Amino acid sequence: MGPGFLIPAEGWFLWFNSPVLIHSASQLLTLAGGPQRGRSLGGLGIIEDGAVVVRDERILAVGTTDGLRRAFPDEPTLDAGRCVLMPGFVDPHTHLIWAGDRADEFEKKMGGMPYLDILAGGGGILSTVKATRTASIETLIAQTRPRLLRMFAHGTTTAEAKTGYGLQTSTELRLLKALLALDDESPLDLAITFMGAHAIAPEFKDDPQGYTDEVTHTMLPMLKEWWEAHAPRTPLPFVDVFCENKAFTLEQSRQILTKARSLGFPLKIHADEFDNLGGAALAAELGAASADHLVKTSDSDIDALGRSDTVAVALPCTPFGLAEADYTPARKLIEADAILALATDCNPGTSWNESMQFAIALACRYMKLTPAQAIAAATINSAHAIRRAESIGSIEVEKQADLLILSVSDYRQVGYRYGTNLVRQVIKRGRVYSVDVGYYRTA
Amino acid sequence: MGPGFLIPAEGWFLWFNSPVLIHSASQLLTLAGGPQRGRSLGGLGIIEDGAVVVRDERILAVGTTDGLRRAFPDEPTLDAGRCVLMPGFVDPHTHLIWAGDRADEFEKKMGGMPYLDILAGGGGILSTVKATRTASIETLIAQTRPRLLRMFAHGTTTAEAKTGYGLQTSTELRLLKALLALDDESPLDLAITFMGAHAIAPEFKDDPQGYTDEVTHTMLPMLKEWWEAHAPRTPLPFVDVFCENKAFTLEQSRQILTKARSLGFPLKIHADEFDNLGGAALAAELGAASADHLVKTSDSDIDALGRSDTVAVALPCTPFGLAEADYTPARKLIEADAILALATDCNPGTSWNESMQFAIALACRYMKLTPAQAIAAATINSAHAIRRAESIGSIEVEKQADLLILSVSDYRQVGYRYGTNLVRQVIKRGRVYSVDVGYYRTA
Repeated sequence: MGPGFLIPAEGWFLWFNSPVLIHSASQLLTLAGGPQRGRSLGGLGIIEDGAVVVRDERILAVGTTDGLRRAFPDEPTLDAGRCVLMPGFVDPHTHLIWAGDRADEFEKKMGGMPYLDILAGGGGILSTVKATRTASIETLIAQTRPRLLRMFAHGTTTAEAKTGYGLQTSTELRLLKALLALDDESPLDLAITFMGAHAIAPEFKDDPQGYTDEVTHTMLPMLKEWWEAHAPRTPLPFVDVFCENKAFTLEQSRQILTKARSLGFPLKIHADEFDNLGGAALAAELGAASADHLVKTSDSDIDALGRSDTVAVALPCTPFGLAEADYTPARKLIEADAILALATDCNPGTSWNESMQFAIALACRYMKLTPAQAIAAATINSAHAIRRAESIGSIEVEKQADLLILSVSDYRQVGYRYGTNLVRQVIKRGRVYSVDVGYYRTA
Repeated sequence: MGPGFLIPAEGWFLWFNSPVLIHSASQLLTLAGGPQRGRSLGGLGIIEDGAVVVRDERILAVGTTDGLRRAFPDEPTLDAGRCVLMPGFVDPHTHLIWAGDRADEFEKKMGGMPYLDILAGGGGILSTVKATRTASIETLIAQTRPRLLRMFAHGTTTAEAKTGYGLQTSTELRLLKALLALDDESPLDLAITFMGAHAIAPEFKDDPQGYTDEVTHTMLPMLKEWWEAHAPRTPLPFVDVFCENKAFTLEQSRQILTKARSLGFPLKIHADEFDNLGGAALAAELGAASADHLVKTSDSDIDALGRSDTVAVALPCTPFGLAEADYTPARKLIEADAILALATDCNPGTSWNESMQFAIALACRYMKLTPAQAIAAATINSAHAIRRAESIGSIEVEKQADLLILSVSDYRQVGYRYGTNLVRQVIKRGRVYSVDVGYYRTA
């Protein structure tokens, strides 16, 4: 852990090498049973007056307070205080690492300038690329750490994090190094994604195919080699492509993703944020872990997702951030039997928000999910979107002890209330972190 | 201060009976010059590398770091750390005090049931009335305190707070007592409003005029007497009416407000949230401090506001909370020369959000305000909406030292970023409170 990063606090803690009983949860949301496809979305597996026994980093037992008190009568305890106990949020789509900000652009966008016009004018993502390329790894880590802490304080215990503001090998590798270092130093686990194909690099402005070839034939093989040398014990990162007008065509996306798959990388895709190019169906065809955005997705592409194991990741913060009216058609995806997940899309251009709770508040209002459906989409299904549903996203025996104690006793308050943080304690791999909306007086 | 309410913290503090220099603000937003009418909205009065000298509860000097360092060379200092220093938010419209919650109703509403139908079915506001009537004053204070703390931690240093979930004299008086107690115990200042006319009391379900007469002829005179006996040193509360179909007609609203005015109460009105009944023009005619909601306000009513000193208070969290498409037409109000303010409308039915930062994020996106305009609407203009612009809402010599140090260096980040809390320190009447998104590790 980095200095100044974690502050020792009051009172209680979880013991190591001894089971600990967390008891008296008003509602224990287990989310047991694996990813929730189609209409099965929203099964929270609620245990009233629930309890969990944690040992070291894992869950040893799940049940009622009475039952587990009898089974573990002499263990140390942690009182959930008649509040909701649930799995940590898994945020499966973030552009966590960048330098600078785009506050100056915000006023323009609110004035009505379309994002793709800003992009075409050399602003937008390319201004972040410029700032990121000139930032040292120390600067990148220092500017990203507060975002990561903010995520964690809002209950995200695992987050996907993409590169993609480098668009050149040297910077993309620096971003990967920084993400590996942040994953190492922080309690939050990162699932890293390589997104050299986030936009056409400015050097290839008039030759998008040239940059596509550069990503395909130079960056991806180099990434494979670099990863095996520098992070041999970490599974290969995801490879993601922004399949969209003014970014990568469907064919260019196919070229990059096919090569990535042949090298053994798991796949993701940005599809149909502004236009329907067919990226979602491509993702399903290639067996990608997820297809993300899906605002303008056609009915046939929705059907393709529904027949696949590719998770449909909705990013409601992005239209909200841009004040656009169209959101991911969640009900259609559910009817088509797709596996729906939620993410923040935290990024400096369209949506700087670290809180999965806010993504849930939006999903209820603008995608017409119930709080139960939104919570399942933000835990077990989002874990599946980063292919970690075997170890996180629910409260089941043998899974990682990534838990939240909320400050409320009814899960429906998540979504109903918004704009503030309802998490009281984050338990990550069995370690307890107290979160406080708190303010502290001096003098 | 109540027990467990404030936690002493680390490091630094402001000295009493000695001036203290708060220095090195990247941007000091003074908001100097009084309420901002029409197109003048958005003048932040920025001083770069700004500084403030505070003595006891008041502001002694405002200027640049260099200038004030020379003028106050030996005073204790507080470093703003190259962050934004600005006035505390003033939230001029909240229904802060109630018992229970309506999480159970949230799913129904998201399923499409209109609020007025829920109201007509005895749910909605009346379910909160039921819970509030049966709650003791201790319960009411205990349930309201966390909301008040959440507001304060998000930078609201003064908030208006309405009664109105009693709808009977005994409960309304209990709510007033509880609000006076909360005002007394907490660092946040409350501007109290009596809103016996929040809805037709269930006892008068078939006789709205009967309840109107009860409020007018029984409650208001009793309130006057009670207030002078119980809170003689506190100015009279505002009197507010919900002028809307299924609540109080325009004539009933006029009856209540005219009587209130004759008794010396300052006035407010809920107007045009769902239908245009003429409440805004009535407010202007009667010299009300504010007319609030204003979603369906007609052009002629907007003009009436523009010619008056009645502040137009927009409540963007309410349509957001209800997932409705229509927001207050802020640009029209600005063009009509009205004084525009922002508030949260924090309440259990339509918008449970304590953060003015989130109201600003919505106002930028859905009312097309710039961050500068939204900040002015949330400070100096909202102070005027509760008729306290003489003492709060801006950073000027002799005003109350109600200040925020943000965790960001550019004011435009407020609105641009959303969903989390950008306030780092709250300074209230010269006392400093540290806010931390923080989480704290044990074990």
